[in-house]
Amino acid sequence: MTTSPVMIVLFTDFGPAGPYQGQVTAVLRRQVPDADVINLFADAPRGDPMSAAYLLAAYTNEFPAGTVFLCVVDPGVGSDRRAVIVEAGGRWFVGPDNGLFEIVLRRAPGTARWWEIADVSQEASATFHGRDVFAPAAAAVARGELPVGEGQSVAGIRRPGWPDDLARIVYIDGFGNAMTGVRAATVPPGTRVRVGGEELTGARTFSDVARGVAFWYANANGLLEIAVNDGRADTRFALKIGSPVEKL
Amino acid sequence: MTTSPVMIVLFTDFGPAGPYQGQVTAVLRRQVPDADVINLFADAPRGDPMSAAYLLAAYTNEFPAGTVFLCVVDPGVGSDRRAVIVEAGGRWFVGPDNGLFEIVLRRAPGTARWWEIADVSQEASATFHGRDVFAPAAAAVARGELPVGEGQSVAGIRRPGWPDDLARIVYIDGFGNAMTGVRAATVPPGTRVRVGGEELTGARTFSDVARGVAFWYANANGLLEIAVNDGRADTRFALKIGSPVEKL
Amino acid sequence: MTTSPVMIVLFTDFGPAGPYQGQVTAVLRRQVPDADVINLFADAPRGDPMSAAYLLAAYTNEFPAGTVFLCVVDPGVGSDRRAVIVEAGGRWFVGPDNGLFEIVLRRAPGTARWWEIADVSQEASATFHGRDVFAPAAAAVARGELPVGEGQSVAGIRRPGWPDDLARIVYIDGFGNAMTGVRAATVPPGTRVRVGGEELTGARTFSDVARGVAFWYANANGLLEIAVNDGRADTRFALKIGSPVEKL
Repeated sequence: MTTSPVMIVLFTDFGPAGPYQGQVTAVLRRQVPDADVINLFADAPRGDPMSAAYLLAAYTNEFPAGTVFLCVVDPGVGSDRRAVIVEAGGRWFVGPDNGLFEIVLRRAPGTARWWEIADVSQEASATFHGRDVFAPAAAAVARGELPVGEGQSVAGIRRPGWPDDLARIVYIDGFGNAMTGVRAATVPPGTRVRVGGEELTGARTFSDVARGVAFWYANANGLLEIAVNDGRADTRFALKIGSPVEKL
Repeated sequence: MTTSPVMIVLFTDFGPAGPYQGQVTAVLRRQVPDADVINLFADAPRGDPMSAAYLLAAYTNEFPAGTVFLCVVDPGVGSDRRAVIVEAGGRWFVGPDNGLFEIVLRRAPGTARWWEIADVSQEASATFHGRDVFAPAAAAVARGELPVGEGQSVAGIRRPGWPDDLARIVYIDGFGNAMTGVRAATVPPGTRVRVGGEELTGARTFSDVARGVAFWYANANGLLEIAVNDGRADTRFALKIGSPVEKL
Repeated sequence: MTTSPVMIVLFTDFGPAGPYQGQVTAVLRRQVPDADVINLFADAPRGDPMSAAYLLAAYTNEFPAGTVFLCVVDPGVGSDRRAVIVEAGGRWFVGPDNGLFEIVLRRAPGTARWWEIADVSQEASATFHGRDVFAPAAAAVARGELPVGEGQSVAGIRRPGWPDDLARIVYIDGFGNAMTGVRAATVPPGTRVRVGGEELTGARTFSDVARGVAFWYANANGLLEIAVNDGRADTRFALKIGSPVEKL
């Protein structure tokens, strides 16, 4: 078995179609031919760094130390928001300084650090920093050329006052299952959860409830998720990103 | 030219967006860095192993012997349905024992065999066996470490009594073309096909009929497919997965 | 750092889901294991070679010399339209001779050439030349085995009388931003653009206008693009592929 190459993981709101993912991937392939490029989310909450921050934090732990996450949920592209590299828990994160890394930072063991990406090419576009700023920086991190210096403590990064767990929908998957920003480990098993006016009990998996029954469960990444066995929770409860849930 | 690496082919109902394909791919890349991972279908008929079985059988032959198909159409995830490895016609299939491999097995030349995946990690989630059970097993097959032993005859695997060809729509592509579960080779060229109350004649390709005309044809994987030249068959005939077609 | 492998870039109207991209990729991976396969557009303007031609021309320059573009916007598949290989500006293009390469050819520096793909397999399907004709040809180009001979001057290729810039929408991305076929460099900065009955001024990036304000800008690939800060231009102006824009 050969040595595993560095992984560069894409976490973006580009959408599943369109050229942006391919353009970013092409930059990475050219600049780090030996890396694996994995598209994790192309449909992170669009233009919504807060919801995205809880989603990102839940999906990082299964990747090995050294993984580089290229994160683009960036409604302020082209403004004076900073571009940053973050090291947290042995993994690297590259993206805009808009709170996207807040929950990762808060949960990281040990001391997290960050660096500003100051050396932006004069030829960078004003609207596609994913390709022109973050991808080259992620490639440099994957090659071990960035960051330079010891980094700053997280006190200086943008720290929005978001809650430790977010009792709102942060993602709806293709099955209509709705993930919240709440870690299921913070919710005792017998807890009821109110969503869309209905009170749900918890279950371990789909087949543990009857067909058509709504329930909550600890999803495979530890988030409290709302689902319906053989049905769609999103349409049943008219859920969208930001819809509230309530622990009873 | 280098030796072709093993191919691991994804056949899932995860949908084109969302994290699941990336998570499964990450497991495969880490555990079999030398393999090619090809995403064939991310939109196999959702939660519908019967329709999916006909689709899968039509799309395997163009892949070389030794290819490993990682197949996840698994509405019973977390229940006591078995997880299996199947060898049929020199290709490998890993997924749930819910009939998904029935049509592949029935058409396979020679003697097919199967193995139960019994050694499931205690840490496997209850709802994402694609990542936690099937992907590690597919990786082990690709590395030649699984299966162990001679396998069982197909008598013991779940064998639903489905027809040899399924005269229903099993897939609708992005162009609105509607594939059936019928092998076109079983249909004489002059046959008329009734769909949505209309009788269609066969044609070789789109440009062989006038614009706006509906027809059936043998698609590039041998399935009888319903199409409209410069139009959409799905909207024209209100087709969805499971809609019936009739050979006249 | 290793030598960068050849890139094969997919530009198709297959759609983001479905098997076609995977099938084409599998052919390429088997026939050129050392190449990088990048999916640039899976949602190029469907069945619309004219709109696609302007989009393709805008997205080629960021790829290195030697890149092979596998281009499938091919409503005439199975008819007697030719299959061609084009060399323009040091890059290679493989696809149908239906005008798809017209704008690339017109803007290419130096002398472009083309070759007909005449040696089509008897086993090629009538409806999936992407897999059966273009992918094998692209693989052969990537391996340096095609084309054979000096090629023909572009006089002989199909040359539709399309304008140098197309003042219509040619692509709508996942954010609702609408790209035109107009090179922004041909439009003086103070120009107003009329779209959907409204007159827009230009801006550098989203955050340079107030929330909810529509504007035009030079996108990251040099096209004039219509956008709304924190909104969707496509729904605001009921835009679709082919909708006209007007420089005032």
